[in-house]
Amino acid sequence: MRKSAADRFRHLFNGSLLLRHHHHHHNRPPLSSPSPLSRLFSSMASDSPFPVSARNINPKVLKCEYAVRGEVVTLAQNLQKDLQANPGAHPFDEANPGAHPFDEILYCNIGNPQSLGQAPITFFREVLALCDHPTILDKSETQGLFSADSIERAWQIVDQIPGRATGAYSHSQGIKGLRDTIAAGIAERDGFPANPDDIFMTDGASPAVHNMMQLLIRSENDGILCPIPQYPLYSASITLHNGCLVPYYLEEATGWGLEIPELKKQLDAAKSKGINVRALVVINPGNPTGQVLAEENQRDIVEFCKQEGLVLLADEVYQENVYVPEKKFHSFKKVCRSMGYGEDDITLVSFQSVSKGYHGECGKRGGYMEVTGFSTEVREQIYKMASVNLCSNISGQILASLVMSPPKVGDESYESFMAEKGNILASLARRAKTLEDAFNKLEGVTCNRAEGAMYLFPQIRLPQKAIKAAGAENTAPDNFYCKRLLNATGVVVVPGSGFGQVPGTWHFRCTILPPEEKIPAIASRLTEFHEKFMDEFRD
Amino acid sequence: MRKSAADRFRHLFNGSLLLRHHHHHHNRPPLSSPSPLSRLFSSMASDSPFPVSARNINPKVLKCEYAVRGEVVTLAQNLQKDLQANPGAHPFDEANPGAHPFDEILYCNIGNPQSLGQAPITFFREVLALCDHPTILDKSETQGLFSADSIERAWQIVDQIPGRATGAYSHSQGIKGLRDTIAAGIAERDGFPANPDDIFMTDGASPAVHNMMQLLIRSENDGILCPIPQYPLYSASITLHNGCLVPYYLEEATGWGLEIPELKKQLDAAKSKGINVRALVVINPGNPTGQVLAEENQRDIVEFCKQEGLVLLADEVYQENVYVPEKKFHSFKKVCRSMGYGEDDITLVSFQSVSKGYHGECGKRGGYMEVTGFSTEVREQIYKMASVNLCSNISGQILASLVMSPPKVGDESYESFMAEKGNILASLARRAKTLEDAFNKLEGVTCNRAEGAMYLFPQIRLPQKAIKAAGAENTAPDNFYCKRLLNATGVVVVPGSGFGQVPGTWHFRCTILPPEEKIPAIASRLTEFHEKFMDEFRD
Repeated sequence: MRKSAADRFRHLFNGSLLLRHHHHHHNRPPLSSPSPLSRLFSSMASDSPFPVSARNINPKVLKCEYAVRGEVVTLAQNLQKDLQANPGAHPFDEANPGAHPFDEILYCNIGNPQSLGQAPITFFREVLALCDHPTILDKSETQGLFSADSIERAWQIVDQIPGRATGAYSHSQGIKGLRDTIAAGIAERDGFPANPDDIFMTDGASPAVHNMMQLLIRSENDGILCPIPQYPLYSASITLHNGCLVPYYLEEATGWGLEIPELKKQLDAAKSKGINVRALVVINPGNPTGQVLAEENQRDIVEFCKQEGLVLLADEVYQENVYVPEKKFHSFKKVCRSMGYGEDDITLVSFQSVSKGYHGECGKRGGYMEVTGFSTEVREQIYKMASVNLCSNISGQILASLVMSPPKVGDESYESFMAEKGNILASLARRAKTLEDAFNKLEGVTCNRAEGAMYLFPQIRLPQKAIKAAGAENTAPDNFYCKRLLNATGVVVVPGSGFGQVPGTWHFRCTILPPEEKIPAIASRLTEFHEKFMDEFRD
Repeated sequence: MRKSAADRFRHLFNGSLLLRHHHHHHNRPPLSSPSPLSRLFSSMASDSPFPVSARNINPKVLKCEYAVRGEVVTLAQNLQKDLQANPGAHPFDEANPGAHPFDEILYCNIGNPQSLGQAPITFFREVLALCDHPTILDKSETQGLFSADSIERAWQIVDQIPGRATGAYSHSQGIKGLRDTIAAGIAERDGFPANPDDIFMTDGASPAVHNMMQLLIRSENDGILCPIPQYPLYSASITLHNGCLVPYYLEEATGWGLEIPELKKQLDAAKSKGINVRALVVINPGNPTGQVLAEENQRDIVEFCKQEGLVLLADEVYQENVYVPEKKFHSFKKVCRSMGYGEDDITLVSFQSVSKGYHGECGKRGGYMEVTGFSTEVREQIYKMASVNLCSNISGQILASLVMSPPKVGDESYESFMAEKGNILASLARRAKTLEDAFNKLEGVTCNRAEGAMYLFPQIRLPQKAIKAAGAENTAPDNFYCKRLLNATGVVVVPGSGFGQVPGTWHFRCTILPPEEKIPAIASRLTEFHEKFMDEFRD
């Protein structure tokens, strides 16, 4: 069953990633292959008045895919416009073909908690507001509006910024005082020291991932080991940087287990094709798969990277999102150090973001990478790359420092902060469980637990009749299912093919983020849809 | 004199940009060439314990240069640490070799106004703070702390955000309501309509420039026409995207004139070498050169792009920074439309940023590009690229909307806003003039006016003895001069070689941003330094 994962993956991606290293000259896109590109080209007029056309842009851009905001989401946005233009026409009205059997679109396609009504953490927003307008810090009205510890924290932060200039470009890695705070937070989390000079603050985690791909990938012969299913930022970034995604499959039957023999097999297969594998991406807790790695498993992964000379790229943006009592997040940095591996033993990059966790401050675009085990020369190059974009946004930098150093016992905000945080995490755990149970009750559907992160990734065993119907519409079966689901329920999920899956299996990713009071209705809408779908297509 | 600009440029950049298209296979860096790369490699131990070394990272990263935060700035940061560690040791103390003849470092290397003490615009910061913490919007204390129109504007903005979720990822192009505001601001500026769907909001202008380079550059045979001198973001981005910088020289003798025959000559020269020239970069007002283009000149540039099928990449981030009454900023969009050229006639991208102007909000990382004259297919690709990074930061988006729609007559903040803005711009004009005059009085130095932007770019005619001394230190003569200047005065400027210059000429870029009260002292320190320098090296 797992013999030729690389071959299956090649099929899955239409050869666009893994096979690229066989074509050395491809200034022109591969018009002869039956890829989405060639379909795009053939649909285009050749007498365009524009100097730039899909025929003459960077083919890597054309190849790049990003399903989280892909076709299903575009359809949803159009449906939403329909609903707004025609608000009275639901529930389903046979006389009105523009009407829809739902009255709102529920975006379960993206981990964007506040878009679905989650309120921001008060303390964080107080500090951000005060840092944006520090002239009110010493006004008396401010004490009536803001907590005492938010005022104190804002003073601390403003004093850490050279010249108190919250509107200035900072040091290319981020404001030193904030990096000190983050390093202290990492040390407290891990029980091992962290160096503020290892922190590179970024506008969310995505630019940090791009930076690493840009650094490591020299040509189409350089490979990056990525989990399948994966978060499509990785495939998109590898494609844009002209590299080769080397897939390793997570084992769905064991709760999306990450197995070393599979890593080893895929690494060797890639090497035998002449690929220089540079790095291993591990997403923990998993996206889209929601598993939380056991510490012992992490030690094996570290050992694997050390033995094989791979950079370990640890996507740890969901480190606060763990929902089951028997699992705990362990950073790879802590795991490495507890194995006795220091700076000179292992090259590790950990990505963190303010967009996830209990706070979900996606719009602030804050994040950092902690970069350890690189030579001085390479660190200078990473610094230079950061400098070309000057710095990440200061509000995001401040927020990243707050996330790594929230209110402490005794602070005025401590209790309300802990209540806000606890309520959000407990509610997310309940929502995950309710949706997981609902999915597992559906005919032909199995769904692993969301131990962490923000997603469920159920497998749907689609009848042959449905697969044929999808073929007739020239679309993938999971895409067919997700579009049907959207049109019937207004619920937006992302087809598994956007993340990668074992060929012949079909999944979708659904966030656990809709407001808790809506979850039962969503579960019953999904159930009702699925029953009708199966009734229509059951073989 | 201007015969072989391309050849001169090739020499200048050590062949790293223009010549690259002659090497088709360069998975290994060109160890045999006498480039900075080979020097770096030869200085490295080969038995590194790290899997990643300067020998095996992406050679495009190694090649990329970014002088604005380059060697001189690193030296300045070290000097600053010295000063902090040893604050009492100035003025120059012969008994203390660690002492320096100045008591502060003045960063004139980068357009970062607030780092040098410029206060933010009050109205902008009020609105940002309120949007960060909207729960205070309807509290009574808020009215004592914030202007009425800032509260009103914050309500408007929060209401424009779906679900009032200021912490959510937005639409990939930015929040629609804010793009409406920006489009209205552009229409008011230009007298021609603007479409909110043409606006892509970005974390400052740099990512927008990278996006366009990524879109347009397919291989090392694709060229981008760039001014010399240029802002090094362009050379860095072109290098990172594996393209070919096709230089055109600005004419220093005519106030950094942009001449069509020079454009044509360089275009033809590049074409004859097999380069597909895709786009023309124009920076107006100029960086580092400070000139403001005449409208007639802009019409010629538009006509040139139209005739030659080039995308016009208009860097218009200094559009508010014009200091001379006889010059006025005209956007290229307005110029195109006033020539009768619409969407189908010319492909134009305009870059704007919140980092510049009178507000100088560099740390907020806000900006946008207005993208016109692309086919639907290509626009979809631009949208997809934006989606991969989800969205730009919301504070930056809000600020971009404020910059394009500041307080109006009758608003409570109008008069104080106009006073803040007017004072900053008038002071910048005075600072530019004082520094320009001081430079022009120096032996062997000529300096064009800063008609706009934030920089002066004086030419220094260095004595042969100084050029030899630089050679003995294995550094470029302008770098030698700038390091000497730093060590003598604490003033940080960027050598002209970081921007490009006619070979054999030497310049530096100096911002006009230090506080006005310090400008006379800076001018006399520069003068004193230069006199001593010339006394030491005069032939």
